[in-house]
Amino acid sequence: MVARMVDLRSDTVTKPSDAMRAAMAAAEVDDDVLGADPTAQRFEAEMAATMGKEAALFVPSGTMSNLIAVLVHCDVRGSEVILGDSSHIHVYENGGISTIGGVHPKTVRNNPDGTMDIDEIVAAIRRTDGALSFLYPTTRLICLENTHANRGGKCLTVEYTDKVGEIAKNRGLKLHIDGARIFNASVALGVPVDRLVKAADSVSVCLSKGLGAPVGSVLLGSKAFIDKAKFLRKTLGGGMRQIGVLCAAAYVAVRDNVGKLADDHRKAKVLAEGLKKIKQLTVDSSSVETNMVFFDIVDSRISPDKLCQVLEKRNNVLAMPAGSKSVRFVLHYQISDSDIQYALTCVEKAVEEILTGGGKLEHVANGTTKTTMDTRSTLTPA
Amino acid sequence: MVARMVDLRSDTVTKPSDAMRAAMAAAEVDDDVLGADPTAQRFEAEMAATMGKEAALFVPSGTMSNLIAVLVHCDVRGSEVILGDSSHIHVYENGGISTIGGVHPKTVRNNPDGTMDIDEIVAAIRRTDGALSFLYPTTRLICLENTHANRGGKCLTVEYTDKVGEIAKNRGLKLHIDGARIFNASVALGVPVDRLVKAADSVSVCLSKGLGAPVGSVLLGSKAFIDKAKFLRKTLGGGMRQIGVLCAAAYVAVRDNVGKLADDHRKAKVLAEGLKKIKQLTVDSSSVETNMVFFDIVDSRISPDKLCQVLEKRNNVLAMPAGSKSVRFVLHYQISDSDIQYALTCVEKAVEEILTGGGKLEHVANGTTKTTMDTRSTLTPA
Amino acid sequence: MVARMVDLRSDTVTKPSDAMRAAMAAAEVDDDVLGADPTAQRFEAEMAATMGKEAALFVPSGTMSNLIAVLVHCDVRGSEVILGDSSHIHVYENGGISTIGGVHPKTVRNNPDGTMDIDEIVAAIRRTDGALSFLYPTTRLICLENTHANRGGKCLTVEYTDKVGEIAKNRGLKLHIDGARIFNASVALGVPVDRLVKAADSVSVCLSKGLGAPVGSVLLGSKAFIDKAKFLRKTLGGGMRQIGVLCAAAYVAVRDNVGKLADDHRKAKVLAEGLKKIKQLTVDSSSVETNMVFFDIVDSRISPDKLCQVLEKRNNVLAMPAGSKSVRFVLHYQISDSDIQYALTCVEKAVEEILTGGGKLEHVANGTTKTTMDTRSTLTPA
Amino acid sequence: MVARMVDLRSDTVTKPSDAMRAAMAAAEVDDDVLGADPTAQRFEAEMAATMGKEAALFVPSGTMSNLIAVLVHCDVRGSEVILGDSSHIHVYENGGISTIGGVHPKTVRNNPDGTMDIDEIVAAIRRTDGALSFLYPTTRLICLENTHANRGGKCLTVEYTDKVGEIAKNRGLKLHIDGARIFNASVALGVPVDRLVKAADSVSVCLSKGLGAPVGSVLLGSKAFIDKAKFLRKTLGGGMRQIGVLCAAAYVAVRDNVGKLADDHRKAKVLAEGLKKIKQLTVDSSSVETNMVFFDIVDSRISPDKLCQVLEKRNNVLAMPAGSKSVRFVLHYQISDSDIQYALTCVEKAVEEILTGGGKLEHVANGTTKTTMDTRSTLTPA
Repeated sequence: MVARMVDLRSDTVTKPSDAMRAAMAAAEVDDDVLGADPTAQRFEAEMAATMGKEAALFVPSGTMSNLIAVLVHCDVRGSEVILGDSSHIHVYENGGISTIGGVHPKTVRNNPDGTMDIDEIVAAIRRTDGALSFLYPTTRLICLENTHANRGGKCLTVEYTDKVGEIAKNRGLKLHIDGARIFNASVALGVPVDRLVKAADSVSVCLSKGLGAPVGSVLLGSKAFIDKAKFLRKTLGGGMRQIGVLCAAAYVAVRDNVGKLADDHRKAKVLAEGLKKIKQLTVDSSSVETNMVFFDIVDSRISPDKLCQVLEKRNNVLAMPAGSKSVRFVLHYQISDSDIQYALTCVEKAVEEILTGGGKLEHVANGTTKTTMDTRSTLTPA
Repeated sequence: MVARMVDLRSDTVTKPSDAMRAAMAAAEVDDDVLGADPTAQRFEAEMAATMGKEAALFVPSGTMSNLIAVLVHCDVRGSEVILGDSSHIHVYENGGISTIGGVHPKTVRNNPDGTMDIDEIVAAIRRTDGALSFLYPTTRLICLENTHANRGGKCLTVEYTDKVGEIAKNRGLKLHIDGARIFNASVALGVPVDRLVKAADSVSVCLSKGLGAPVGSVLLGSKAFIDKAKFLRKTLGGGMRQIGVLCAAAYVAVRDNVGKLADDHRKAKVLAEGLKKIKQLTVDSSSVETNMVFFDIVDSRISPDKLCQVLEKRNNVLAMPAGSKSVRFVLHYQISDSDIQYALTCVEKAVEEILTGGGKLEHVANGTTKTTMDTRSTLTPA
Repeated sequence: MVARMVDLRSDTVTKPSDAMRAAMAAAEVDDDVLGADPTAQRFEAEMAATMGKEAALFVPSGTMSNLIAVLVHCDVRGSEVILGDSSHIHVYENGGISTIGGVHPKTVRNNPDGTMDIDEIVAAIRRTDGALSFLYPTTRLICLENTHANRGGKCLTVEYTDKVGEIAKNRGLKLHIDGARIFNASVALGVPVDRLVKAADSVSVCLSKGLGAPVGSVLLGSKAFIDKAKFLRKTLGGGMRQIGVLCAAAYVAVRDNVGKLADDHRKAKVLAEGLKKIKQLTVDSSSVETNMVFFDIVDSRISPDKLCQVLEKRNNVLAMPAGSKSVRFVLHYQISDSDIQYALTCVEKAVEEILTGGGKLEHVANGTTKTTMDTRSTLTPA
Repeated sequence: MVARMVDLRSDTVTKPSDAMRAAMAAAEVDDDVLGADPTAQRFEAEMAATMGKEAALFVPSGTMSNLIAVLVHCDVRGSEVILGDSSHIHVYENGGISTIGGVHPKTVRNNPDGTMDIDEIVAAIRRTDGALSFLYPTTRLICLENTHANRGGKCLTVEYTDKVGEIAKNRGLKLHIDGARIFNASVALGVPVDRLVKAADSVSVCLSKGLGAPVGSVLLGSKAFIDKAKFLRKTLGGGMRQIGVLCAAAYVAVRDNVGKLADDHRKAKVLAEGLKKIKQLTVDSSSVETNMVFFDIVDSRISPDKLCQVLEKRNNVLAMPAGSKSVRFVLHYQISDSDIQYALTCVEKAVEEILTGGGKLEHVANGTTKTTMDTRSTLTPA
């Protein structure tokens, strides 16, 4: 008998459903590098329609999706992008926009709700007409992230997004939305997803997070943007052959699982409410907007690292530390209500064990676990 | 009834077999970005063993595989790579090693057999000890290509490869082999594939060319090299989630199709012999070493573009022009002997039609076809 | 008669002294690209001794000096540098470290005194040992700026610098000091300049700011560092031929003008005290540590742009706006006490004119002036 | 008494004349980074007029001049430049266009006369309209070099240059001329220098080679091009302050020394004729078009390295090996006819000494000399 495992590290850990597997096995395919895969073309057309953009491109990952977007918008040497200091692009994508793309990042502070202050965005835009503009790189792009992973899955509203879009437009800049979890935002806000990204020149959407596809992300924008994106995808090595097999699974993911996101959000609330009852923890359940739960540990004898290690070693419950005092749980459709109750029980037991059995803890802490993370920062990756 | 199509453009056009589709559908998977996909790990371990290298990494494409290899070996700013002037990396990969990686290419002339002259390689290595070495980038890498696509699929021998490897080693350089079709070389030469790449510090092998997997390439090298490669794969956006689905298909591809390559080579010979009999064409059948056939058109009234267009429009036979006077056919396991005879008949008819029916040709030539290519160069892509 | 001009825009505007001109005219020179210019070699050796570093390199500018330093320390692809969000490198050097060098910047907030909080520096260092370190660029360098131009010429103390150096050392990082005005700091703090930069792996020092040389900056570090820097200087195009002519002037600049910096600081205090008496302005004279005076305008009818324009048009007094409400004056040895009194009188008159003569102001404001700057930010360049 | 030295390594070794020194000492200057140096502005305007271009920019070196030109013309990521395989940019500028600028070089073979075959240039231009153009970088620039250093200072004619210019124009490409020694070509061909570069979108001209200025190069092109070049000059760190001192010397260099180039060419012929008489050497004096003399050593007992070392150690005659069998002498206005006769005598003696005194030679060869170079290639730097 295999022990029960509850993997709350990320919504990237979902396994493909039977329907996805069947779709992969049956997919009509051809060489997509030669522009010939019919399943890819259908999928891209549907995603473009869903997101309200002219064109779409299937890419191997969200990181590539964002990288391509930044590089296409900043295709001229000497470009700068304005983005959040806790944004996924800035923190978790290896600095690729600079180290691979030569784009200079100008960070603006991310508020607890995932926004950047409008006036700070405006102040960050470099002048091009001043006597000293030859000292500055040229601002060409603003990036938003919706939902914002490092801010607990907070949603950016239509109003905010439109406002930033207007600023960008008025200044001749582009707006890219890292919409890895844009469907979560759409569902949580009750706003059609195409409306939510209307102001954006480009959007990247992850298929392998809450939607559960095995592989892939889709990048959306104008026809001209996607043409350039296709070139860059090839340059980066993201051009793949019979990708119909992946697009077929992604198609099922979008079809079957967008409707389940609301339930992920409900389960996140349930988990948050349960955690609240454990006195060594604090969690602001009102801050749970989508499928993420961040909680703080108030008892200094319990480190996030130790808690996660004990959870993993004793109970096969996986989570990630999210700072020096906090831990992150991410919900997805393969986590059941029963899993949540189990996880809550395990957290309670782990807390107790740590408080009463320090000696054993050292032992556990020495083991290799999947969940050891940097606890110096308040950040966790997608 | 669907008209018969014979796609001889490339061996990348193969469709996944039923066994591959079944394997995808059944694959055990997990999040490979978190290092957890068991099928990927098994596949990478097997490929490492097969190729005689310490470690392996599944990547989305051959382009990424080569790009990562060059960038890992040339990880310090100011590096130069020596490679063939007709090599795939130099000609068909968007110049990514420079435009994305900042690596300076130093080309050496590719001989008709795909080699570069040893003394030209040696002469191309920059001195690091001279009084003027501060004017030069630092040579860090030599790249070979086996088989060599732009030289008609010619094989590099063990002796040649070992010799270049020895030069590299003696000078403190690395050797990378673009082994997109290294199994074709192994089969044609009758040399175990691990022996053939023994001298190389890294090798890239395409799974979606003659082997027929839907997606992917595998990069091989030392453990330390693959660790760095993994980082760069993530940076480029090639880190994917449940890639077990792709690795499962790739596993079947290697298991089932390496053994079929010899037959692809035989069929290439048959096709070459057949083409020889068409008097407007010349083909050196002795030059057919693997699965590619390049032939020249000696009648100036027939351009490669026109021939390919007529073949496609009239007969659904797809091929690619390969220069101002030549055309390329590539064989793979989904081309039958009957397809070859059909293609030969179609070529004969197309030649005749062009010679007798110029008016119609203009019409055909105006249509959109899949096969229009650059005829100013002698090069065709993988 | 030429009207009196008082140029307070920057200390970069000094003209070479007669002694410098004589030195240029008499300099013994040779081809420095071939490593043969004796004056350059003597000057570099003396600067190395003065700064307490093994070796020195004359470069065309402070921007190149910093760029080379960052690129040498971050010579491996995928590097990140920690630096102040208001630092000259981040704000005024065109983003060159990213757009030319592919280095990813991680900014930490600059405090009013020019420091970054030690714990924020520590938190900004990326882990290399965590399970998720493959998502991060590699931190390789910390940059400080002393004095800090965008913080009004504030000095970093030995204690602070040593502390950051210790952190860097313990983590295997390098420390670079942008010491464009390090002699101002040395003088103001009463600390020998070599002691002040002891903890640094490299330092750049501007010769053409307060020291008054016509051209150049000097980069200092270990012998190995300077060897790499020399290569990069050549790559960037900073290798020049008979630079003895410039080094001879720079030698005089260091010899003659370091001793005058204390007087520049005194004059800055005088200017600040004078400005304090103008009721529409506020200036914290206690914050004047070196040769810069930043003051705020409290009357909303007077914009920094207008004030600077009126000063230039009416009185040939040049200054730069330094934010939406503030203006910057920079002192140097070619500004006399009489100039300061003149400037103070002019500021007073300009304030009055603006408050009483709006119509005329519009006229003035429409003219082309040297001093129009970005007033959206609190930043001014070196 | 200082021993006589005859430095024939390069025309970069000239020392500034008294007139240049006087001009430096007297130059009217201001801060050129702030766009205010009057001498720089006058010099740039005169150079623009002389070269027949809209605008000019003084830069620290020829390397920076070429680097800026390539990067401005190739400002969009994914660009390729066509240039000679022996061109200075490709061979001696550290690969900066790739390693710093991310531009992909496509080399075409340089003929003995410094040209590239027109049809090879045309064949090297990448298609942008083909079905497979997504596999290629985008050709944006062609570079010529006039005179061509690695081809013995050969001149490109107006006709050839115009032809390449026409090709570039028709294809939407730019043409840059590395005119480090364009005045030598103008004088040798008897063609006004502006006519010679008429077809070029940009030209770089070295002031510190045969013209004898201590420092600098000038880049020329349209107003829009130079505006971009100025930005890039600042990015690279080539923006300098009171450059009037350098421009004043450069002005004298152009005024006084263009007229002396014809005599340099005459002296090169004299030297070549003299070398011809030494039976161990061969030199094609008809190939001497400007100020360079390359000669071959036919006696295998004499290596270029040894010959140069003996010349330096015994006679203070400096030269550079230029290949496995050849040596390069470069003439300039500070080499007198008497120096040439002296050098010829020394060469004769050195040859004799090497042939008769091998033992001593080993001793000499072990010493550190200025002239040791790479003898594996046929190339020597500027």
